[in-house]
Amino acid sequence: MHEFKKVLAFYPKPRENEFCSMEQSHGEASTVLAACLLLAAMRQYSTASGHEKSQFPVQKDAIMTKLESKLATLVAGVLLVCLVFAQAAQADEGMWTFDNFPSKAVGTKYGFRPSQEWLDHIRLSSLRIAGGCSASFISSQGLVMTNHHCVVECVEQLSTAQQNLEENGFSARTAAEEKKCPDFELDQLVEIRDVTKDVLEALTGKTGDAANKALNAKRAELEQSCGSDASVRCDLVSLYHGGVYDLYRYKRYNDVRLVFAPEFSVAQFGGDPDNFNFPRFDFDIGLLRAYEGDKPAASRDYLCWSANGSKDGDLVFVSGNPGGTFRELTNTQLVFERDTLYPFRNPEVAERRGQLEVFVTRGPEQAREANDDLFFLENSYKVFYGRQMALLDPQFFDTKVQEEQRLRKATAADPKLAAYVSAWDDIAKIQQVRSQLFVRSATLGARSFRTGLLGDAVTLVRAAAERTKPNGERLPEYTDKALVNVQQQLTAAVPVYKDLEELDLAFLFSVVRRDLGADDLFVRKMLGKESPEQLAHRLVTGTHLEDPKVREELYKGGQSAVAASSDPMIQFAASINDDLLAVRKEYEARVDAPTRAAAEKIAKARFAVYGTSVDPDATFTLRLSYGTVKGFENAEGKFVQPYTNIGGLFERATGAPPYNLPESWLKAKASLNLSVPMNLSTTNDTTGGNSGSPMIDKDANVVGLLFDGNIFSLGGDYGYDAVKNRSIAVDSRALLEGMRKVYHIDRIVDEIEAARK
Amino acid sequence: MHEFKKVLAFYPKPRENEFCSMEQSHGEASTVLAACLLLAAMRQYSTASGHEKSQFPVQKDAIMTKLESKLATLVAGVLLVCLVFAQAAQADEGMWTFDNFPSKAVGTKYGFRPSQEWLDHIRLSSLRIAGGCSASFISSQGLVMTNHHCVVECVEQLSTAQQNLEENGFSARTAAEEKKCPDFELDQLVEIRDVTKDVLEALTGKTGDAANKALNAKRAELEQSCGSDASVRCDLVSLYHGGVYDLYRYKRYNDVRLVFAPEFSVAQFGGDPDNFNFPRFDFDIGLLRAYEGDKPAASRDYLCWSANGSKDGDLVFVSGNPGGTFRELTNTQLVFERDTLYPFRNPEVAERRGQLEVFVTRGPEQAREANDDLFFLENSYKVFYGRQMALLDPQFFDTKVQEEQRLRKATAADPKLAAYVSAWDDIAKIQQVRSQLFVRSATLGARSFRTGLLGDAVTLVRAAAERTKPNGERLPEYTDKALVNVQQQLTAAVPVYKDLEELDLAFLFSVVRRDLGADDLFVRKMLGKESPEQLAHRLVTGTHLEDPKVREELYKGGQSAVAASSDPMIQFAASINDDLLAVRKEYEARVDAPTRAAAEKIAKARFAVYGTSVDPDATFTLRLSYGTVKGFENAEGKFVQPYTNIGGLFERATGAPPYNLPESWLKAKASLNLSVPMNLSTTNDTTGGNSGSPMIDKDANVVGLLFDGNIFSLGGDYGYDAVKNRSIAVDSRALLEGMRKVYHIDRIVDEIEAARK
Repeated sequence: MHEFKKVLAFYPKPRENEFCSMEQSHGEASTVLAACLLLAAMRQYSTASGHEKSQFPVQKDAIMTKLESKLATLVAGVLLVCLVFAQAAQADEGMWTFDNFPSKAVGTKYGFRPSQEWLDHIRLSSLRIAGGCSASFISSQGLVMTNHHCVVECVEQLSTAQQNLEENGFSARTAAEEKKCPDFELDQLVEIRDVTKDVLEALTGKTGDAANKALNAKRAELEQSCGSDASVRCDLVSLYHGGVYDLYRYKRYNDVRLVFAPEFSVAQFGGDPDNFNFPRFDFDIGLLRAYEGDKPAASRDYLCWSANGSKDGDLVFVSGNPGGTFRELTNTQLVFERDTLYPFRNPEVAERRGQLEVFVTRGPEQAREANDDLFFLENSYKVFYGRQMALLDPQFFDTKVQEEQRLRKATAADPKLAAYVSAWDDIAKIQQVRSQLFVRSATLGARSFRTGLLGDAVTLVRAAAERTKPNGERLPEYTDKALVNVQQQLTAAVPVYKDLEELDLAFLFSVVRRDLGADDLFVRKMLGKESPEQLAHRLVTGTHLEDPKVREELYKGGQSAVAASSDPMIQFAASINDDLLAVRKEYEARVDAPTRAAAEKIAKARFAVYGTSVDPDATFTLRLSYGTVKGFENAEGKFVQPYTNIGGLFERATGAPPYNLPESWLKAKASLNLSVPMNLSTTNDTTGGNSGSPMIDKDANVVGLLFDGNIFSLGGDYGYDAVKNRSIAVDSRALLEGMRKVYHIDRIVDEIEAARK
Repeated sequence: MHEFKKVLAFYPKPRENEFCSMEQSHGEASTVLAACLLLAAMRQYSTASGHEKSQFPVQKDAIMTKLESKLATLVAGVLLVCLVFAQAAQADEGMWTFDNFPSKAVGTKYGFRPSQEWLDHIRLSSLRIAGGCSASFISSQGLVMTNHHCVVECVEQLSTAQQNLEENGFSARTAAEEKKCPDFELDQLVEIRDVTKDVLEALTGKTGDAANKALNAKRAELEQSCGSDASVRCDLVSLYHGGVYDLYRYKRYNDVRLVFAPEFSVAQFGGDPDNFNFPRFDFDIGLLRAYEGDKPAASRDYLCWSANGSKDGDLVFVSGNPGGTFRELTNTQLVFERDTLYPFRNPEVAERRGQLEVFVTRGPEQAREANDDLFFLENSYKVFYGRQMALLDPQFFDTKVQEEQRLRKATAADPKLAAYVSAWDDIAKIQQVRSQLFVRSATLGARSFRTGLLGDAVTLVRAAAERTKPNGERLPEYTDKALVNVQQQLTAAVPVYKDLEELDLAFLFSVVRRDLGADDLFVRKMLGKESPEQLAHRLVTGTHLEDPKVREELYKGGQSAVAASSDPMIQFAASINDDLLAVRKEYEARVDAPTRAAAEKIAKARFAVYGTSVDPDATFTLRLSYGTVKGFENAEGKFVQPYTNIGGLFERATGAPPYNLPESWLKAKASLNLSVPMNLSTTNDTTGGNSGSPMIDKDANVVGLLFDGNIFSLGGDYGYDAVKNRSIAVDSRALLEGMRKVYHIDRIVDEIEAARK
């Protein structure tokens, strides 16, 4: 499955649209490709004239709207750009923002040019799950489709030792049976506003910590400008690593209920060994429903179900929220990731995986508690390892080197870009600082300091302190707007597994000591005379933070409540908070701020050379990718067909995990049409965070549900390879077949089919 | 601690010597360093005249014994060599074989030139522990000193659920209480014979599999030439990666008994966090006794205890068996290790570590079973990670690149070396083949196929098949000579922990499926319809191989017994044996054989350019290194003094593992002289396998017991850095203080002191 990222969740306003039953005037005839040279020149121009993005919802095609004669200075780069553009046009590459979608290029290539209306409809039918996934409305009554692996955390949280929904699946037979997920947020993107000028002005002349403070203040101001309505969320989004700043406004749904989840074993059939592989046979679907005022939310924009599904070669779109790509990084940044980040991180992830592998064998309850943690860890490991392997591939790395050389040469050749020439060297120098600060910042920035009971304690301590400051001077995750979410998360009644918490913290403390050394002053302060295991045991057994009421009281009580607390986890968090923040502050000042400044220059150089029709690196914000249903050649050189079928699922089942099918499927086998397509591969450019994205045809009808990429797609995080990279989706036909014949959730299938054209 | 390598054990003849009470005529005055240019020229010459080594025990100083005028063709390399030599002379670098020790250089630098008599005495006092450590005789009655971590496997095997000797320590109060280690072998090197000519003749004109077969046949013949006496072991040793072949003859002791082992907590005080770090405070000693005919072996050569120990700056020697270094590898081989081997292996080691970390928390019995496995795994991980970091250091890697460039240039410059010029490119091409074969060969060559109950089953299947072949056509580990050892290991009554075996196998099967893919034909055959966990469970619960009698019967019964066996582990091993061997054979034919051929050329080029006074990469054979007691600058730039003291041990103790002291030390504190030196750091060039080596002064008296290196010494496996690399030893004074005042083993201390000068 695609990597599932834990992303801090923050804040939307509804908008109207109806598409399902509309007649659409798409499908215009393919136009002849405009001469490359001219296109390139137009692209060049559009950037040189300043990167400005219109207010949503006007879709600007900058290439076509303005044209001036600036060709003279650009001659050097034009042929190159032509090549790049030609390549891009062939490659189906791109995770495009909705305000900069290359409709014309798609129209030229595929004979279908998405209209503004079409784009708006898709955007408003699309959803983001704040925890790190994508989703979409598939009925007018707030029914939401995503992956099973995107709802599994909710499924686990709604389970008990007596009722294991993860293992047995869940179907709400009636509306009343739909169960609220304790901690779930859905975001619908309603507006994109370009605030680049505003932000860059605030940053002018500032470096290091001063630049970070100015950015935080501007972020707080802009996000606050959306008002205090908890159903509205505004995020300042940095695109092109600081080249463009947009304010994304979302309608936020936080009453989200579980409607349907199949058994884990069929949703994740093949488990870790089949993950990122194809052929594949997963029924990776989860259904939710957005509620408002305790009633199903009215979802004006929703996707209809395709009557016939897709076929090999069909044009398909994926609308979702890719979490992060690193294609714009400079070579020295890639070297850092290859030679410092992964060698350090991968073994730690692997070690934690080993711990959980044995932890889940202790008993069924431990398995229930930790199976999904293990599952996501295995996934993360495969992602990190795949990325590392891509960077270690000398041929692949060489393409990145060539890419950079071309841009640097073109930048150096244009006197107007003189101010940007040094940026690559600036970043090279920053990597040295980064290397020095890396181990400490990675270690003290570890996820375990921000999650679980210790994470709650740290959040309580920080929230109390930050609330005493003016909004603009706070850490960005504690602004008034952000606190809405902080409070909701803190007070959510999620189950806590103390044995797992203890294991997690002992590992954290152990890794901190290992990485910083037993004689490090922070380590000595953290551990005192205790071993990592002893400290973890004392904190976890002594704390009462597992009780949401205790958390709520501490949150409401603020600094005095925190200071007066005798809870060992709170006391511990308070004792190390300043140290953690100091390390973060230094890293942000000495690495993040100067990197942003240099990356902004590189982004400007790139716009000047290649134009703005370049998609920005993924930022867990809504993107649209286009591609076709297509097979590929696997690592052994064999061609893999783009579709599997339900029959293949049964053939692959051995009965032993992770190739075991639940009773429901075994029983239903005779009634199933085994030739129905199960999973499919397409050329869409997607990555982690895209999990749960709807895959649609040009009629905006659902033909699949994206849940993964092939093994080559992992290298796609550094650069898309059209020959090898594939997205993987559950076929819409298998979804209906399974929901009707295996799960008999006719109520839901009827709701979906009511919208079928 | 130094890495502990599992090395297959094979065979020795006694010799006489007595040194302890002898008057020695060492300590000759330092002579003025001969002109570098002249020395370099002489070195060049000695090689160009053919690399020949004398029969043991004549110590040949090739530089001084012959001299002809070949300077003319060597001028180009001379200045370079001069530099290299000057560096080497200053660097104390080198793991020297006893037949090529640079006595003269040491004499020149330190004013002490080891005599042949001195070298023979040290060699015969030194021992190898076949499992992967070093040791020495320290009394005339076969008393053997090594590290605690070198005897911990025996300690664990002699423990029971009721009596945890690892935790509580062990002291044999009387000779009768000395307990036999179930599976222990000590080897004393009695002869080195150069068989290079013989071996290379056998290989002439052969490549690939044919070369491997010829080498195996020659090995079998040479090793067999030592006779069938089980107390004699002969190993064909390849030095300089195939440049030189020697036949090492050992006297072999296999009745080895445990005399003394302190508690794990003080032996490995500081555990993993302090491992490879200094300052250090470990009491890492274990005492054994070699027996012959059920009586303490008479050890004519043994080391005496120093009366006063060492002091900062003192010249010290370490005699032991470094396991493996990789300094002679070409740059492309290093790139393979850096970019393919470690990224693949380190996370697997880390994952296994994570599994054991949780396994040992299941209960005291599981802790007892797996604590030492975990301990060695943590050590291995640190070693692999340290090596990877060294190769990832661009500055360090550049020194390796420069080194190779120099040798290649010098080789290319000399027409006589024309035949060797292509060797580096040959090795570069082999790395491509190696990359293709790597994952499969690494996975199916995994240690778990060769250890534990599955390892026993594979050995039984292979031994049965191989014994039907003529001696010269067998796999080298099943020749008649080798089978002596195979049979001893198979029939040793070592405890078997089935829960740990099951965990180990489930992990193995899981990793094989993960690395090769669920659709791989071997994986399908291996797993059938079972999951890794199910297969492991069925094999481990169904087998009876834990019974040494069952193993012995199967061994004796040969092929018919193996074929008739209904033991699931035997049946499984038989079903996959051919597949495992096919992978091994292909790798050996396509990688090992051509690499050996190319490395032989490089070795010859190196001899021609630099002379034979170059120490060969470590091969777990006896070496002597010289150096001085010396501190170093740590990673933070602080100077670390070379000695710690017993007081520091108590200061560092927090009471929590791994900084907890056993009751014995806490009770004895008042009686201890806290200023007695505890551990010391020296510039000796050592590595894993050297653990347990005696550290001696020029009088051949024990001043320390080597047990580790500092963190920089890990990079030393690729290249020694005199400024940073340090060996770490337990001070001889702390050893006596602890044995007398903490453990009150006066019987032993008296035995040691009887030999004190």
